[in-house]
Amino acid sequence: MPMTRAQCLEADKIDPLARYRDAFVLPPDTIYLDGNSLGPLPKAVAGCLHDTVVEQWGQGLIGSWNDHDWIGLAERLGEKIAPLIGAGPGQVIVADSVSVNLYKLLATALSLRPGRTIILSSEDNFPTDLYIAQGLTALLGRERCELVILEGSRLMKAIGANTAVVMLTHVDFRSGRLYDMQSITQQVHDAGALMLWDLSHSTGALPLKLDAFDVDLAVGSGYKYLNGGPGAPAFLYVAARHLGNATQPLRGWMGHAEPFAFRPGYEPAPGILRFQSGTPPILSYRALEAALALWDNVDLDQLRDKSVLLSETFIELVQASEVLSDFVLNSPREAAERGSQVSFAHPLGYAIMRALIDRRVIGDFREPNLLRFGLAPMYTRYVDVWDAVAHLDGVMLNREYDTPEFREQPRVT
Amino acid sequence: MPMTRAQCLEADKIDPLARYRDAFVLPPDTIYLDGNSLGPLPKAVAGCLHDTVVEQWGQGLIGSWNDHDWIGLAERLGEKIAPLIGAGPGQVIVADSVSVNLYKLLATALSLRPGRTIILSSEDNFPTDLYIAQGLTALLGRERCELVILEGSRLMKAIGANTAVVMLTHVDFRSGRLYDMQSITQQVHDAGALMLWDLSHSTGALPLKLDAFDVDLAVGSGYKYLNGGPGAPAFLYVAARHLGNATQPLRGWMGHAEPFAFRPGYEPAPGILRFQSGTPPILSYRALEAALALWDNVDLDQLRDKSVLLSETFIELVQASEVLSDFVLNSPREAAERGSQVSFAHPLGYAIMRALIDRRVIGDFREPNLLRFGLAPMYTRYVDVWDAVAHLDGVMLNREYDTPEFREQPRVT
Repeated sequence: MPMTRAQCLEADKIDPLARYRDAFVLPPDTIYLDGNSLGPLPKAVAGCLHDTVVEQWGQGLIGSWNDHDWIGLAERLGEKIAPLIGAGPGQVIVADSVSVNLYKLLATALSLRPGRTIILSSEDNFPTDLYIAQGLTALLGRERCELVILEGSRLMKAIGANTAVVMLTHVDFRSGRLYDMQSITQQVHDAGALMLWDLSHSTGALPLKLDAFDVDLAVGSGYKYLNGGPGAPAFLYVAARHLGNATQPLRGWMGHAEPFAFRPGYEPAPGILRFQSGTPPILSYRALEAALALWDNVDLDQLRDKSVLLSETFIELVQASEVLSDFVLNSPREAAERGSQVSFAHPLGYAIMRALIDRRVIGDFREPNLLRFGLAPMYTRYVDVWDAVAHLDGVMLNREYDTPEFREQPRVT
Repeated sequence: MPMTRAQCLEADKIDPLARYRDAFVLPPDTIYLDGNSLGPLPKAVAGCLHDTVVEQWGQGLIGSWNDHDWIGLAERLGEKIAPLIGAGPGQVIVADSVSVNLYKLLATALSLRPGRTIILSSEDNFPTDLYIAQGLTALLGRERCELVILEGSRLMKAIGANTAVVMLTHVDFRSGRLYDMQSITQQVHDAGALMLWDLSHSTGALPLKLDAFDVDLAVGSGYKYLNGGPGAPAFLYVAARHLGNATQPLRGWMGHAEPFAFRPGYEPAPGILRFQSGTPPILSYRALEAALALWDNVDLDQLRDKSVLLSETFIELVQASEVLSDFVLNSPREAAERGSQVSFAHPLGYAIMRALIDRRVIGDFREPNLLRFGLAPMYTRYVDVWDAVAHLDGVMLNREYDTPEFREQPRVT
């Protein structure tokens, strides 16, 4: 039996994470279940950015690179993210976008596995990950680098002596399916290859153990569960054991050993800092910094427990509703195999999501027919889940999806 | 005879660009001559960012990608920059950093000149430009790509049948020396190679004519004379005639023909849009957008005229001062060969600049012995130049540079 609305309210009352909700701006009468596309605004951001603009830039001018340590932001923010992904110090920086960081790390992987040429990935990986690999392959030519894309279940058997790196997204952006990081990383290592995880849909949603599982390389997003703002800078991780030899092709001055010596020859900065490229967008970094401050004392096991209970409740409520009997669960039914989202297939999925958003329940639609709901345990309440499913009932009962305006596809969702 | 202070005040009074100064936050009692490192804060930015954070992100959430056209920012800002560099529509976007954009365009150049392997550049080019080329060379291997770095005067003779692209910075970051864009581009074309200009130190300081001079490729900075904020996103230009065939290796989803179809295969977006990679940092883009609005009606010839008179005045005042007789001009004496800065060599340059900054005259120091002064005609006044040189006189007369604290090198200047 799924929880009743009263039980949800009760669960919210005793939720140890409940106090974090107040740290966010959440528009009234809105149930926001799209934090896995764009996290909501942490209240601390506006003040931090105002200070950065008016005081640091406006009054401090060029001096703020030193006086307010803008130059150290990439490293400082990396160290804030490190505990969220189970990384010890000196292995994480914030830089560029997920796409650009993937490019760096794929090239790094090839250089760390000379003679091996294959990048192996899954056909349902997030598209930009595949595009970036295709771009590297096109540049290097097939004799130097080849991208092999397989259906997920066939991947492990395909790893061979020519596989340099396996690149997977830990939590699938459509289904929320969660890969077994430890087991896969181990199998990849057994074949002598490196493992590169895209953590965009898992960082800030569940505990991660990159060091403990001997992960080699990882990237992740700043704008989903980390709530760093639209297009927030991304992060990358390189295991300490690789840092001595690791090189990457986007050798900008910020990754130089002495950027302000202005010497014509590139000399890599020590350790992870060499994975920086050009001058970083400080305003966006500062918004992310304010957002990351929220994580200082979050218990990630509590976070995961709540995430599981939220998604279990969502699934149980949908499955218990007769009105929703033609919604097909597109996420694993086992909580242990799921990230922090649920998705359902429905042939009218797009129009239904539009109607739901019209009721101010914000999820998103993914091709071809998926309704996707992100459950962010820092601010999503149990009662939000209950109310969202009740709204979905209402949309179906009243056929609210059945209007011409909801049939046209959007540019972005 | 250089201008007197009274004549400077008079020149400011009749300056047709004088009204723009009021659009900037300029701290009181400060003479800011470092806008070529970081432009000052345009007053419009704080409000624009506040609205972006509080309304667009805070209230609009994920919907703002469409409702406030965040998705169109790269193109929209590119079109705002286009007239400043003499580019017709459809050839400029804002994306990533100068370094990352250079990487894209160097790879593009190699693909447009198959069989040619050499990137030719000058030894005094801005270091990150050289590092990026070194990174590409290291990845591709010498048989596919080689960087040849020469002293500037030897460059033109070195262009040969194997030169794919010549990469130069239009205005030198140390001396302010201005290359003859038309003549060099023509010579490079005569040898069958492509021309890639780094416009970081010229955009917003003088009129540029990329289309008229048949330039192939260009990049530039958003945070210098465009005043877009610390680490503001950069721009890139690809001439329309190349866009049909141009590819670049950093193939992120934002450069895909249909990013939200989420197909596994990369298909380039039409035209210049394919030079986008990952999700862009919207907050930093919006600050740049507010800054670019200032340029709508600026007459770039007036801008150049004022820039020349500012730098002529600076040089004349220094050269007329007996106290400053050991300052050696490190910029071309001919205005036509100079960008919008002047620099002087002095063996005690670093300590002198520290002492000058202590008097709130902000220039910067560049290794090994250069005092550099940026003259931004949108907000620098003639009287600022006069007062700056008077302060320099004072620093030397009083030996204010001669203190232990000013001898230590900074991390950033």
